[in-house]
Amino acid sequence: MHQTVDHVRLSEDGGALIILDQRRLPLHREYLTLTEKQQMYDAIKSLAIRGAPAIGIFAAFGMTVLARSMPLGDRAAFDREFLASSAYLNSSRPTAVNLGWALGRMERVLAANPTLPPEALLPLLRQEAQNILDEDIAMCTAISEYGLSLLKPGDGVLTHCNAGPIATSRYGTAIGPLILGAERGIRLRAFSDETRPLLQGARLTSYELQRAGVDVTLICDNMASMVMKNGWVQFCFVGCDRVAANGDAANKIGTSGVAILAKHYGIPFYVLGPSSTVDLKTPTGADIPIELRSEDEIRSKWYAEPMALPEVKCYNPAFDVTDHELIAGIITEKGICRPPYTESLRKLFA
Amino acid sequence: MHQTVDHVRLSEDGGALIILDQRRLPLHREYLTLTEKQQMYDAIKSLAIRGAPAIGIFAAFGMTVLARSMPLGDRAAFDREFLASSAYLNSSRPTAVNLGWALGRMERVLAANPTLPPEALLPLLRQEAQNILDEDIAMCTAISEYGLSLLKPGDGVLTHCNAGPIATSRYGTAIGPLILGAERGIRLRAFSDETRPLLQGARLTSYELQRAGVDVTLICDNMASMVMKNGWVQFCFVGCDRVAANGDAANKIGTSGVAILAKHYGIPFYVLGPSSTVDLKTPTGADIPIELRSEDEIRSKWYAEPMALPEVKCYNPAFDVTDHELIAGIITEKGICRPPYTESLRKLFA
Repeated sequence: MHQTVDHVRLSEDGGALIILDQRRLPLHREYLTLTEKQQMYDAIKSLAIRGAPAIGIFAAFGMTVLARSMPLGDRAAFDREFLASSAYLNSSRPTAVNLGWALGRMERVLAANPTLPPEALLPLLRQEAQNILDEDIAMCTAISEYGLSLLKPGDGVLTHCNAGPIATSRYGTAIGPLILGAERGIRLRAFSDETRPLLQGARLTSYELQRAGVDVTLICDNMASMVMKNGWVQFCFVGCDRVAANGDAANKIGTSGVAILAKHYGIPFYVLGPSSTVDLKTPTGADIPIELRSEDEIRSKWYAEPMALPEVKCYNPAFDVTDHELIAGIITEKGICRPPYTESLRKLFA
Repeated sequence: MHQTVDHVRLSEDGGALIILDQRRLPLHREYLTLTEKQQMYDAIKSLAIRGAPAIGIFAAFGMTVLARSMPLGDRAAFDREFLASSAYLNSSRPTAVNLGWALGRMERVLAANPTLPPEALLPLLRQEAQNILDEDIAMCTAISEYGLSLLKPGDGVLTHCNAGPIATSRYGTAIGPLILGAERGIRLRAFSDETRPLLQGARLTSYELQRAGVDVTLICDNMASMVMKNGWVQFCFVGCDRVAANGDAANKIGTSGVAILAKHYGIPFYVLGPSSTVDLKTPTGADIPIELRSEDEIRSKWYAEPMALPEVKCYNPAFDVTDHELIAGIITEKGICRPPYTESLRKLFA
């Protein structure tokens, strides 16, 4: 039986990818129907779809849509076009590893079946995309269970950016334990950093937690220190876009600051993400490329009128790297890795 | 000779207070003309005028305007009304100490001249307000000199919120050294936290630094960690709304987080403000009242449409307290205080 999720799915005939436009949340639930690779690239680049696991699922299903219009009578030409489209989608965002990981799985369907005609590859590609989704649902559920096992009733959890259902498949990673807890009637308290400049915490995380019945309080990023000092937070749970072999974790800009505050206040800081986010080929955080985005995201985006002079320079990195020494544990679907991460992360893949 | 500043000044006949409406910056330079105490209260409350020293200057000149309409033929009635209006203005914001300090100086003009008729008090009140302004200009200049003495060409300074000319009289406190440095052709680099939710860093600090010819880069609050990690910041300079006897300093929300990051990265963190901000009657930061502001400042203010569901709870403290242990020095017009602050601050007033 096919599992599906509402926010990334194929049209009934499989000829289009339908996604919830995350740029329009929380006031508008609008869907986009995508059939062309340029549209898919733009959807990732412009954050209509976002969240490392969700981007992977999106790209996999996206390739099944694109494959249908490739030269089905010529396997060599099909492969060339497939790999070119895959590389093109992969170039849309540099930091998350899941995008390349999911596209790599799709490419291996071709490599594993070198003699099949393209027509016969299409159902296999569709199955592989479905596998990626099914596995993500299982992974998020397992991660949520491991995270929830750390919490006791009444605990407060601070999160940054959005690693919820729409950033993944179901439950999410960082806020999965809170949503699973709410399903089970466990009283927990969430604090959501609004996460400037794109406000994923305001627009997405507080929206998803509120809808899931979690007691959530939205704060500006710079209020995390005071919330921690007030004693309201027992854990920090954040997602990740890439974890290096030594445990350094790239995630939304500001995550490293949260980790430093948590250390100062003695609050354990956990990174939650599927094991596909762990990239043993990346030795340390210094080797993770960091995407720089438009200065106008800071000066003028969202506002009724610009909040800074147009000639004022801005620096707008989309991610930062949290040093492994600040991380109490890395929670994947396979369990909770503890320091030293060089060993515990390697064992994940043993 | 009367010194004046453009952003808070009396009308030519002394019958009205004219202020630059800081809510409309940076795109609009608009002035408000105030004659009633309710207008003055609202101007403070709504942040048309803001910055602890500027509020003090504002309140002092405001009282000279209000005094003209008080019962000039009846000294007892005049005093009652004067004290009532002073208490009313003082209730507009609870955290900054300068407001009460400046109003107290105005009240003492009455107390020091118990037999003068009200008509004769008016020029004395006007002179006291002018003294407060003149002293603030001298203080800001001295603070800027002390701050600049710490810097060498090429240094980067990170600041939070706005403690610039319009928050004071001239130069400002926290960014005074940068503006003075620019006047002298010293190459310095500023990083301005945008300072959510009211964006004083984007709207005011980056605006003032840009106009003063300082090389300024605007960042979101959550990017300070990365900017520090990049090695771009050699000092953090922030203003203050109240400094307790032990050196704990209340300033704009998020300041304590900047101080914790600075400690983590080994960057000295300085608090700059006039000695009138030091309140020896407040033993520690825990005794400083913290103003809570509207949740809509987080959910919807500035935006073309709300960024969070209206039913999502928000926590919106306007200030936080930075622990004295995180502060390398407190710079007033009298010099640089070093730890232990219990001693060095007391000596300021010896």
